This record gives sequence, structure tokens and C-alpha cells, in this order.
Amino acid sequence: MSAIITLTTDFSLADAYVAAMKGVILGINPEVKLVDICHSIKPQNISQAAFILSTAYKFFPQRTIHVVVVDPGVGTERRAIILRTPLADFVAPDNGVLSYVIQDFYQTPPVEQLQPIELPPELEAVAITNPEFWQSPVSATFHGRDIFAPVAARLSLGSPPTDFGETITSLTVLPLTHPYWVQDDILVGHILHIDNFGNLITNIKSEDLPATKQAITIEVGSHSISGLNRTYEEGKGLLALIGSSGYLEVSLKEGNASTFLNAEVGGKVKIRLGNQ
Amino acid sequence: MSAIITLTTDFSLADAYVAAMKGVILGINPEVKLVDICHSIKPQNISQAAFILSTAYKFFPQRTIHVVVVDPGVGTERRAIILRTPLADFVAPDNGVLSYVIQDFYQTPPVEQLQPIELPPELEAVAITNPEFWQSPVSATFHGRDIFAPVAARLSLGSPPTDFGETITSLTVLPLTHPYWVQDDILVGHILHIDNFGNLITNIKSEDLPATKQAITIEVGSHSISGLNRTYEEGKGLLALIGSSGYLEVSLKEGNASTFLNAEVGGKVKIRLGNQ
Amino acid sequence: MSAIITLTTDFSLADAYVAAMKGVILGINPEVKLVDICHSIKPQNISQAAFILSTAYKFFPQRTIHVVVVDPGVGTERRAIILRTPLADFVAPDNGVLSYVIQDFYQTPPVEQLQPIELPPELEAVAITNPEFWQSPVSATFHGRDIFAPVAARLSLGSPPTDFGETITSLTVLPLTHPYWVQDDILVGHILHIDNFGNLITNIKSEDLPATKQAITIEVGSHSISGLNRTYEEGKGLLALIGSSGYLEVSLKEGNASTFLNAEVGGKVKIRLGNQ
Repeated sequence: MSAIITLTTDFSLADAYVAAMKGVILGINPEVKLVDICHSIKPQNISQAAFILSTAYKFFPQRTIHVVVVDPGVGTERRAIILRTPLADFVAPDNGVLSYVIQDFYQTPPVEQLQPIELPPELEAVAITNPEFWQSPVSATFHGRDIFAPVAARLSLGSPPTDFGETITSLTVLPLTHPYWVQDDILVGHILHIDNFGNLITNIKSEDLPATKQAITIEVGSHSISGLNRTYEEGKGLLALIGSSGYLEVSLKEGNASTFLNAEVGGKVKIRLGNQ
Repeated sequence: MSAIITLTTDFSLADAYVAAMKGVILGINPEVKLVDICHSIKPQNISQAAFILSTAYKFFPQRTIHVVVVDPGVGTERRAIILRTPLADFVAPDNGVLSYVIQDFYQTPPVEQLQPIELPPELEAVAITNPEFWQSPVSATFHGRDIFAPVAARLSLGSPPTDFGETITSLTVLPLTHPYWVQDDILVGHILHIDNFGNLITNIKSEDLPATKQAITIEVGSHSISGLNRTYEEGKGLLALIGSSGYLEVSLKEGNASTFLNAEVGGKVKIRLGNQ
Repeated sequence: MSAIITLTTDFSLADAYVAAMKGVILGINPEVKLVDICHSIKPQNISQAAFILSTAYKFFPQRTIHVVVVDPGVGTERRAIILRTPLADFVAPDNGVLSYVIQDFYQTPPVEQLQPIELPPELEAVAITNPEFWQSPVSATFHGRDIFAPVAARLSLGSPPTDFGETITSLTVLPLTHPYWVQDDILVGHILHIDNFGNLITNIKSEDLPATKQAITIEVGSHSISGLNRTYEEGKGLLALIGSSGYLEVSLKEGNASTFLNAEVGGKVKIRLGNQ
């Protein structure tokens, strides 16, 4: 079957860990299409992996299988899971790495701190406990190769999730930050991610901004930006726009905003209603 | 159809931008073969992308589709284009990133500065203006995902270029530097690219050198190299040879010439006829 | 034929050298599956490439073809070879890059210094001397593209190794270091590799350790670690465990052991029998 399996890990491409996973997958389903989403996740940075995955998975065809191996608890009691959504399947540790995927099924932020949440009815989840399809022997330190890869490959051949373990009804999610109004006219958001261009991608989405076309000022550190641009090319210096994933971004024309502003993930970005 | 689509971008693999493009392509043509040419182009470095592409595309099978997304002007009036050559198809912004591809159809340097040039009859070009095949909605900031990817995927299914917009007869090219004689016996060239080994790849091609087997001296900074080697392994210290893309390279045996010479792209390399 | 070809090089992904090889391969066998093992081998670091390859190749399906191009002697008299093992085929320069693959067929370390060894009967090797299947013309500096790639592609179509040159009976292997006992109770090993997480992977395998469950202390620099962990998550600070490739590793919980210990490849790690 010509299914697609994507891989997201913190393994980098400087080792052969990713390749070993691909070898295992191709040994089970030689026809599968393998696509790398990202292997540059910072070691054990679950929230970064969760965000990166969220910016890509919706663009893959229905029933693509996304394997995520950012797994500091490998070999311990943390669960390995399959999550089936109407669009896609996910094979990952149950450590919050699917938080954005799950959150898309909630209207409001589901949790304030790392914890399990009850799944809505559209989502089906299974704890991977049946060793029948694992590599043998299973290492204690590389479940990506020995459990996630062979499970994803079997799943790509059409096995139902329940072949791999028992149905579960709650999954762990990260306490994702959401922008909040501190005054009637000030919205506070945070930087979720800094991309390769140095763009600061915030947790402020276009729907968080006033629907009316009123003037806004974007503040980051001691800098202010008047209003939103449509492209990276208009204007000059610092600019803000709604990026291709729907988040407000701060960018520096022909430069690197992150370096220029000395910005970091988690830093604040404020929206002030009205002109500067 | 089992076509090949290659991707060259400045997105790096640290974000999921490349993966999103692949997801879109596979959603349209599940059978396509995706090959990464390079995603480490320096942000918005059009000339680097143009050079890297030129060293690889000729080695792909006929009718491979090469997508290039180094696109500082995304969302502005710059055109998105399809270029069809006898060998391959290219989908890219019209910003000079196909300059080396186009130049291969000219005997002499076509332009002295960034400008549009009239295409020779072997080349067919189309401005991508028909939104029928684009992602909907189209972002203003990620045409790689929303325009170039779906257009390349449809093209790989056999659609003719004219399905995507109107034929155009001129394209933008960069003012590519060419080596020039400053005296009867001194040829001045420039460093086009520094590769991962630290080799300095110049714009001097073997056909720019005297056809007779006369002695030459290669000068870079305050260093001189006598004659050309055939391999990186002969001799010792600095050496020069005609590399695998036909350009004169300066290399350091068992070392990094770029670091040793503190060389940069754009730096001068001189050929002096006669011995040192 | 839907064969698999893997690639391991020191080319990095910042140039288009890897892509040029893929283009050549797909021109000969459009149906082949291409998998990157690693392109971040340090320039001309044959022993690193040999180790990285060894951690991945066993996880690929039978008859996968592994191409390795870490080739400082390209264009000189060094031989290009095909090695056929019961599991897989390898296409590489004869410079020691297949040392770990070959060593798996010997009970004891085959050599003390870089030299050719006689192959055991399970292994079949051929010197690639028949230019019929090479790119034409062949560059002197990029046999990866002009010889190894087309040979691997033809091999993936079912050609027997002897189509490419004459059978040979010895290959070059590196003098791989093995742990040794300096006293009845002290085993000395070395760091073979430092992975992306900063884990120190040593040449000590579980079978080198006492079979009885006696206490051991692992010493690295001025630090001591008591006993072996099962996972990276147990305990705190420095820890040691048998990693997923069967080698003893030193790791730092939630940190980078390599940076913390200022460790380098080749550094010593000692096992002392008994408690600290």
C-alpha cells in the first residue's frame, strides 16, 4: 500500500538513528512513502516538536501516518500511543507532543498544566502494549526504531489501531499558552517559535485580533510596529504580519528579527489597540 | 505518474516548511518521487540558489521538475513562472534564480545587470496567473506551499505549462560574473561558491584556459599554486584542479582552503600564464 | 525493481553533490527507493563513516544496496569495490569504510593496522574496473556521481557484481580498537562516537562485561558512575547504559555528557569491577 509515513524527531541527521527507523519501516511496508518533517528538534524539546508538527500535518493527504519521536522518557512507564483523528494517524509517546493536534478539537485551552485530558468523540486513541509487532529484542533506549517504526509500518498496511493495544480515553497535553487581554486595549502573547529566517512566530492568531479594521501597534521589547503588513517585502525595518500558519509574526526586512531583537522563545509580544 | 520533483529552498530543515510543500505535492500526485537538492541556501540568497541548482539539475532524468523557492519578494508583484527547457521544467519566482539554466542557452553573458532578457526559441515560459490549481486560501507569505508546490504537482501529472497562465517571452536574469583578461597573460575570475570541504569554486571554466598545455600559475590572496592537479590527493598543501562541474577549484590537501585562505564568495582568483 | 539504495557521504546537504548522485541513480532505475543514512560525516573521516554505517545497515531489508562515499583518495589508485554479504550489498572505495561490516564476520579483531585482509567465504567482493556502466566522461574528483551512483543503480536492477569488474579476495580494513583488560579488574575502552544528544558511545559491548551480575564502576575523566542504568531517565547526573547498538554509552540526564565531560572521540572509558 502506497501510504505516507512522516517522521519528526530530535535525532538530527548527524547520526543514523533516523535511517535505522526508515530501514525497519521499509522492511515491513516496502511501498510506503517516507517524508521527513523535521529532525532538528532540540534534544527532548517536546513543545517545539509539538509546534513544528502542527504547522505541517494538515497539508498531508488524509490518512497520512505521523511518527513523532521526541521521547525523554523512553523505556520508562510513559505510554506509547496511536492517536487517530478524522484526518490522520499519529504514533508517538504520550508526553504532550500531540498537544496542538488535540487542541484543534477544543474551543478553549483544555489545560493549565501538563496533565491528561479526556478525548472528544472524534478522536480515537490506543496505548501500544501488544509486543507482537515490535522489533525483537526491544531496546530500552530506542523505541523509535523498535516500537514506533514497526507499529507505524503495520498501521500503514491497514491494521486497525486496536491491533496494537487497548483503547484509552485520555492523553497527556502540554499547558499551551494563549494570548490574554491585560487591559481592554492590550493583548499579551508569547513567542512560540523562531524560524530559520529569524521570524518570531507568536501564539496570537488572526482571530484573536479585533475583527474591525482598527489600528493596532505591535510591541516587542522596546520596539513598536504600526499595523500589519501583508508580505515580508513591504515597508522597511521591523514588520508584523499574519504568517502562513495563521500566527502573528514579527520579521525584519532583509534581516533576522530574532538576532536584531535578541528575542527568545517564550518572550512577550504585545498588541496595543490604537496608533502608536 | 512516476515523475520526479526536486526542491531547492532557503527554508532549512529546522522548520516544517519543506515538509508542508511535500504534503501538498503528495496530495495531488501520490506517485511522484521527491528529491531534495538543497535547503541550506542562505536566506534570500538568490545567486547561491541559482548556482547550486545548476550543479545538479543536468544529472536528473529528462522532464524532471525542479521547484526553487528562494523568494524574498513573495506576495508582491514579482512573477511566479514555469520555464520549460528541452531537458527539464522549472517552477520558481522570476527573480534570477534560474540564471545559470537560462545562460546555458547563450554563447556570451546575456546581461550586465539584473534585468529581463528575451528567451531563445528552445525555451518556453509561462507566468503562473491561473489560481485554479493553487491552495485555497493562498497565503501572502508562503507561495512555495500554496502556489509552487501544487503547480509542480499538477505539472507532474502531465498538464501543459499553458494551463497555469499565459506564455511570456522574457525572464529576469542575474548579472553573472565571467572571468576576464586584464592583460594578455592574466585572467581574473571570482569565487562563486565555497563547498562543504572548503573548496573555492571559481567562475573560471576549463574552456577559459589556454588550450595549449602551457604552464599556468593560480593566485589567490598572497598564495600561488603552480599548475593544475587532476585529483585532491596529489601533491600537498594548496592545489588547483578542474572540479566535477567544470569549474576551476582551489583546494587544500587534507584541509579546508576557505578557512586557510580566509576566502569568501566574490573573492578574486587570478590565472597567470607561465611559471611562477 | 523496487530496490533500496542508501547513501552515506561527507558531502553535507549544503551542496548539491548528494542530489546529483540521486539524479544519476533515478535516471537508471526510476523505481528505486533512496534513503539517506548520513551526510554529516566529517570531511574524509573514514572511521566515523564506518561506524555510522554499522549502526544502521542491519535494520534495512535484505539486499539493500548501501553506497558510501567518504573518499579522500578519489581519482587515485585506490580501488572502488562492491562487497556482497549475505544481508546486503555495499558500493564504496576500498579505504576501510566497510571495516565494521567486514569485522562482523570475524571472531577476533582482524588487524592491528590499516591493511588488506583475506575475506571469509561468506563475502564476495569485486573491484569496479569495467567502465561500461560509468557516467561518461568520468570526472577525476567525483566518483560518487560518476561511478558509485551508476554502479549501485545497475546493481539494483539485478546485474551481478561480476558485471562490474573482477573478483577480489582481500579488502582494506581499519585497525578497529577493542577494549582490553589492563588488570584482572580493569577493562579499558575508547569513545567511538558522540551522538547528537552528547552521549559517549564506547567500543565496549555488553559481551565484554562480566556475565555475572557483579558490581561495576564506569570511569571517565575524573568522574565515576556506579553500575549500569536501563534507560536515560532513571537516576540523575551522569549515567551509563548499554545503548541501542549494543555499546556501552555514557550519558548525562537532561544534559549533554560530551560537553559536561569535555569528551572527545578516542578518549578513554574504564570499567572497574567492584563498587566505587
